[in-house]
Amino acid sequence: MPLTNVETTHAWWADAASSLRSLTASDGVAYDAARARQDNLTKPPGALGRLEDLACWLAGWQGREAPRLDTVEALVFAGNHGVTARGVSPYPVTVTAQMVENFQSGGAAICQLCDAYGVRLRVTALDLDNPTADMCDEPAMTPDECVAAIERGAEAVNPNSDLLLLGEMGIGNTTVAAALCCALLGGDAADWTGPGTGLDAQGVARKAETVGCALSRHLPYCDDPFEGLRRLGGRELAAIAGAIMAARTRRIPVILDGYVCTAAALVLEKAQDGAIDHCLAGHLSVEPGHARLLRALNLNPIVELGMRLGEGTGAAVAYAVLRGAVATHNGMATFAGAGVDNKA
Amino acid sequence: MPLTNVETTHAWWADAASSLRSLTASDGVAYDAARARQDNLTKPPGALGRLEDLACWLAGWQGREAPRLDTVEALVFAGNHGVTARGVSPYPVTVTAQMVENFQSGGAAICQLCDAYGVRLRVTALDLDNPTADMCDEPAMTPDECVAAIERGAEAVNPNSDLLLLGEMGIGNTTVAAALCCALLGGDAADWTGPGTGLDAQGVARKAETVGCALSRHLPYCDDPFEGLRRLGGRELAAIAGAIMAARTRRIPVILDGYVCTAAALVLEKAQDGAIDHCLAGHLSVEPGHARLLRALNLNPIVELGMRLGEGTGAAVAYAVLRGAVATHNGMATFAGAGVDNKA
Repeated sequence: MPLTNVETTHAWWADAASSLRSLTASDGVAYDAARARQDNLTKPPGALGRLEDLACWLAGWQGREAPRLDTVEALVFAGNHGVTARGVSPYPVTVTAQMVENFQSGGAAICQLCDAYGVRLRVTALDLDNPTADMCDEPAMTPDECVAAIERGAEAVNPNSDLLLLGEMGIGNTTVAAALCCALLGGDAADWTGPGTGLDAQGVARKAETVGCALSRHLPYCDDPFEGLRRLGGRELAAIAGAIMAARTRRIPVILDGYVCTAAALVLEKAQDGAIDHCLAGHLSVEPGHARLLRALNLNPIVELGMRLGEGTGAAVAYAVLRGAVATHNGMATFAGAGVDNKA
Repeated sequence: MPLTNVETTHAWWADAASSLRSLTASDGVAYDAARARQDNLTKPPGALGRLEDLACWLAGWQGREAPRLDTVEALVFAGNHGVTARGVSPYPVTVTAQMVENFQSGGAAICQLCDAYGVRLRVTALDLDNPTADMCDEPAMTPDECVAAIERGAEAVNPNSDLLLLGEMGIGNTTVAAALCCALLGGDAADWTGPGTGLDAQGVARKAETVGCALSRHLPYCDDPFEGLRRLGGRELAAIAGAIMAARTRRIPVILDGYVCTAAALVLEKAQDGAIDHCLAGHLSVEPGHARLLRALNLNPIVELGMRLGEGTGAAVAYAVLRGAVATHNGMATFAGAGVDNKA
């Protein structure tokens, strides 16, 4: 669907926002049945804490009292960013494509985690030879480019997934995430800017300046969050937004990874309250903007392990916790079934 | 080894304390090799956060650069407590033996978690028909009973384990843990007393009073932590202490579960600084004394999920994180191997 002018694009954004307004909700009957099930299992009520909450949450989104984790996929989207010319990352931009090869040959962290936890990994490289424009000079993407990336993300979702993990790779993309968060949530550029893959203090200051420069150009156009995504985002963020939307229409629950991934989710939530209700925050990254972003989205991360790698690695570790949640929920005996005396 | 009088017992405690003083240490060469390995893997240095630390820690204790998780066992010890006569738990004491059956038939939470994560579960019921004495009236165990329980714990350790998870079951044993922590670390009984399996405020107050009553009788004899264990502890706590000691002599790393399990570990650490350096805190329980106890032991829990079940369940969820740590450590490509450009 080539979009040739801004009016058409805005019509597309309006359509997207409109489809977000008619989203499916969690299944309250399945959720309540899952809660009732938990209260009969051989443990004091509530004693499995968040494991119980996670199992019941999955039950609601999957629409079944006993959620399934048979088909679990991690989708990792990779993109390149023109803004890297401004020295916002200690790594060269060549690393994005090299890491995609590393994903494909099994050598990356996310490959090993997916293997350890029984998750199928699928990587989508988004036009890596054609980085987005430098957002300090012009919008990062044309309308066509942005819509195409959103659609690539949506198409990557296997409609038979029981659960989706989302992640990304893209040298420079914490700069992009910072710009997007600052545009959509306010605050100063410095509030959202951190060391990413390992900038020193001087590098972080330069990065914040870059974010500020991009905002001074685009902020007036960012009332529409999709327009913010087009101007400040990258292809991998657009794809993640597309994948989250596609998952929602099929009521597939999602685990978000860290800062960049959650910044993409922010676009949807700003477009429509509740648009990411089917998403969990996998972990709390040490990239400082992430904690601020999770608070703004009222998301409570499952694990906090000082990670800051991206690739979906935080989502994958969180998934290991969900496996335990579902195993206990589905497999434990009841007090009556096991002949265990209950509370007086 | 029947011990027939207090002098012999104290000689045993002295022997135990002495063996703790000559403990094996972590292998610094293997640890350093593991750290060096991490720094060459295809990720920014430190970007896997605690996963990196955990993998290197395991490498040190196992004495190999690439730690193994081939043989991982969860040992759960169960005991009964005379102090339950004082109404310190909302569940009847019959539940301990019933839950042991539930462990054996696969219906308990720990069974499902072990199954989900590939851990072998072994349960040791410690003389359940013969509860310990009521610690408010007399020492909970005779010297013979306490030493026998310690030895049962030590014998339960498979010397070929790559990693050990420890857990417990025993109606009334958070009361026992509270008494032991208060005796060995100070503070008021109320500081260490919480709802356990679900007491209301009145129940917690009664429980704290029970702990205070036990302390008023035994505190003068608790300068020796093993004597504290005998007077205030239960068989499952003594067995856990024995298992931790046995694991240490074979340099098998250990994941502790929650409050009760960590209270047993406290006995060893009070007997000898560093005695539990081969132990990780699996999780932070919501039982309030646990956070206080972990601070006192300078242990940083791996996950915090609002759990309070015991059985080793918190250790099992933490183990899922360790699996990811080891998978990435052992399986990731290096920058050179994958042809990925490193930082400038």
